[in-house]
Amino acid sequence: MDNSIIVAPATAFGGAIAVIRMSGAGSVELLDNIFVGRESLAEVKTHTIRYGVIREGERVIDDVVVAIYRAPHSYTGEESVEISIHGSRYIAQEVIRLLCELGARMAQAGEFSQRAILAGRIDLSQAEAVADLIAAESRAEHAIASTQMRGGYSKMLDGLRDEVLEICALLELELDFGEEDVEFADRTRLSEMLNRVESAVWRLLESFRMGNAIREGVKVAIVGRPNVGKSTLLNALLQDNRAMVSEIAGTTRDTIEEMIMIDDIRFRFIDTAGLHDTDDKLEQMGIERTERAIKEADIIIYMVEPSDTQLELPELDENQKLLVVVNKMDTVEEEDLGIEGAIYLSARYDDGTDALRDALCELVDIDGAYQGDVVVSNMRHAYALNDALGYIHHAKKAIAENLSSELLAEELRRAADSLGEITGRITNDHILQTIFSHFCIGK
Amino acid sequence: MDNSIIVAPATAFGGAIAVIRMSGAGSVELLDNIFVGRESLAEVKTHTIRYGVIREGERVIDDVVVAIYRAPHSYTGEESVEISIHGSRYIAQEVIRLLCELGARMAQAGEFSQRAILAGRIDLSQAEAVADLIAAESRAEHAIASTQMRGGYSKMLDGLRDEVLEICALLELELDFGEEDVEFADRTRLSEMLNRVESAVWRLLESFRMGNAIREGVKVAIVGRPNVGKSTLLNALLQDNRAMVSEIAGTTRDTIEEMIMIDDIRFRFIDTAGLHDTDDKLEQMGIERTERAIKEADIIIYMVEPSDTQLELPELDENQKLLVVVNKMDTVEEEDLGIEGAIYLSARYDDGTDALRDALCELVDIDGAYQGDVVVSNMRHAYALNDALGYIHHAKKAIAENLSSELLAEELRRAADSLGEITGRITNDHILQTIFSHFCIGK
Repeated sequence: MDNSIIVAPATAFGGAIAVIRMSGAGSVELLDNIFVGRESLAEVKTHTIRYGVIREGERVIDDVVVAIYRAPHSYTGEESVEISIHGSRYIAQEVIRLLCELGARMAQAGEFSQRAILAGRIDLSQAEAVADLIAAESRAEHAIASTQMRGGYSKMLDGLRDEVLEICALLELELDFGEEDVEFADRTRLSEMLNRVESAVWRLLESFRMGNAIREGVKVAIVGRPNVGKSTLLNALLQDNRAMVSEIAGTTRDTIEEMIMIDDIRFRFIDTAGLHDTDDKLEQMGIERTERAIKEADIIIYMVEPSDTQLELPELDENQKLLVVVNKMDTVEEEDLGIEGAIYLSARYDDGTDALRDALCELVDIDGAYQGDVVVSNMRHAYALNDALGYIHHAKKAIAENLSSELLAEELRRAADSLGEITGRITNDHILQTIFSHFCIGK
Repeated sequence: MDNSIIVAPATAFGGAIAVIRMSGAGSVELLDNIFVGRESLAEVKTHTIRYGVIREGERVIDDVVVAIYRAPHSYTGEESVEISIHGSRYIAQEVIRLLCELGARMAQAGEFSQRAILAGRIDLSQAEAVADLIAAESRAEHAIASTQMRGGYSKMLDGLRDEVLEICALLELELDFGEEDVEFADRTRLSEMLNRVESAVWRLLESFRMGNAIREGVKVAIVGRPNVGKSTLLNALLQDNRAMVSEIAGTTRDTIEEMIMIDDIRFRFIDTAGLHDTDDKLEQMGIERTERAIKEADIIIYMVEPSDTQLELPELDENQKLLVVVNKMDTVEEEDLGIEGAIYLSARYDDGTDALRDALCELVDIDGAYQGDVVVSNMRHAYALNDALGYIHHAKKAIAENLSSELLAEELRRAADSLGEITGRITNDHILQTIFSHFCIGK
């Protein structure tokens, strides 16, 4: 156990004030060496603020406000102080230098959160949620991170893990009585339990697609024959002239990607080269990239002109969704060409694009995230859930094939470990290092 | 008097936490509408912290820590709260939106400091010093802003102004008794007082050259004949290949400017085109720019080669300083060519440049700033001091020419007003607007 006093800036610089955070037994006494206020900080109660100056000898570094947190009533569970200084990086450097000269040391990235975990105040997935929360830029991202931080997610995972461990315990009991050949765990009941756990893990994994889309943006590929107006549509959605447009078919060669927020959902629109047969080498390369974009997309906007009578719809995965858009409606009289579910618009005159925006948002159903449903948005968690699912499948197979309880218990223990990795009940140094290296200093 | 409750982020975003500041009577009650903690904030004493959540209905926006400041014990002198949230811009937006829906409004730039001035907690020059303090990037800048913020500067200016006003009062007494032709103010004593004020104002104005150099950087022009190695020296000082160098004389056409910190002093090095006669139009333009750079420089590095026997030193202002540098010492055997005060070095091999750095720092004597001397660093203050000095000169002339007390008093009143403008005792809306528009939001 590391008892050192750690210190780091907790805010960014560039505002009116900045905050320096220090944690560890003895933090208040240490600060008191350079703080001059109306009274010694030693006397000050937890959760109170004192105004004073930070001094190095006769030199005044800054007027500050210090907040005192006595153990265990702080984020880390340790005695902590927060020092509000004027928002200058220079002042922060000077204050931190003085504190380090007196015995504190600079905190590593994520070290405050690691101490909060060690103190049992939060678990690993909650610490990760804190990082997600700070990075949240939309209501949906915020909702997912917020739910995860509040611990509903951890409870659910711990519940699943407990169920798996309970089965393990029964199986291990059998092993202890091995020679007597008893079966404490009824195989039918065991299968039922496993099915329940399996479908819960499966639902969590399923939510990752949405969670990931919310975090990384929903990928929307705009595809269609050359010159149907794909780039014009992208520009209309962006309200900008991002993509080069012209009358010439094949103007767009490489794929162009743009992030657009619609109704608090982050979309990543990918404008693609027109699909057609060509001998032009560069165009062929562009079309290959278009085909890749289609494969990776969550939603495909298939764009045609009013005169197109035959639709050559791309093949879709079971998870992909399609929107047919008929462009250049400004060139015809009709308002509905009878293509089922199609959206009619004029990208050039930005007419009808709102209907497209609405349709896109409808396809991305993120209401669950707002309602506090558990949504997996973290790649590490998705991998762990996937591992757990694999071990559960192995276990089910073991039951079906009537394999030994020992083997069955082993698979289930692995499943439990995979689930435990998410909340940090099962950890290894490598995982922890990787996670916290992505944290910012002061967190 | 504006009684509204103002709110704004007080820190930048991108750290673990961010702080939102709200000020105005009723701030605590307003916050209490969306804050859910263990107890109502209404009961909470000044200078205490409470942990809780910010809610919009059932939706939890964030876990926060709020700090309560009761009037008049806050920066603004008003009831204030500081809300520490997770460092997400999205969360800050949401919290500020909720507070504004409940009746707060977004603060304008510098509005918190304006309220602090209105409450008499700081004066205008102190508020400006807060802005300088936040922007401080070196020990010297910090020292100047810190002294100014602590009010020694204001006291000195108020003292000078009081002296001038005292003379005015004596003169006005004469005017009241005008017809009796008395002289309450002994003209000799009056002249002495004015001389004292004049020299104090003059010293302050003199300090502006140093203060400005510390703030904006000390301008150092590197000049000399073509191909003596001026750009090579700049690169050596920068430890970078910023300037294009070649064997060809006249490689540098336009002036190149680079900021370099040496020993906590900010220098602005200006590499110039070589001085020589030329018919090349572009080169001529470059040489004109060099001549301008020499005029504006605080320090001129005049660079020669070991073979140069005759120095054609540029003409200097009384405030300008000169350093003679003999470059290319790697090409000769001698170590001292007998040029008085010259620094011998090889820019190419970065040999001897430390001696140059030391010499530069010695020429900029900023010890006064460290020792808490009053140093003027603000252009607005320099203008006001200059105005005051002008009026004092007029007044002295009026005494010498035995002009009327009325005229004399008028000049002195103007001098007092100019001094009062600095600390804000005399203000007009235009000045205030200009000053605070440069402040950041939340200050």
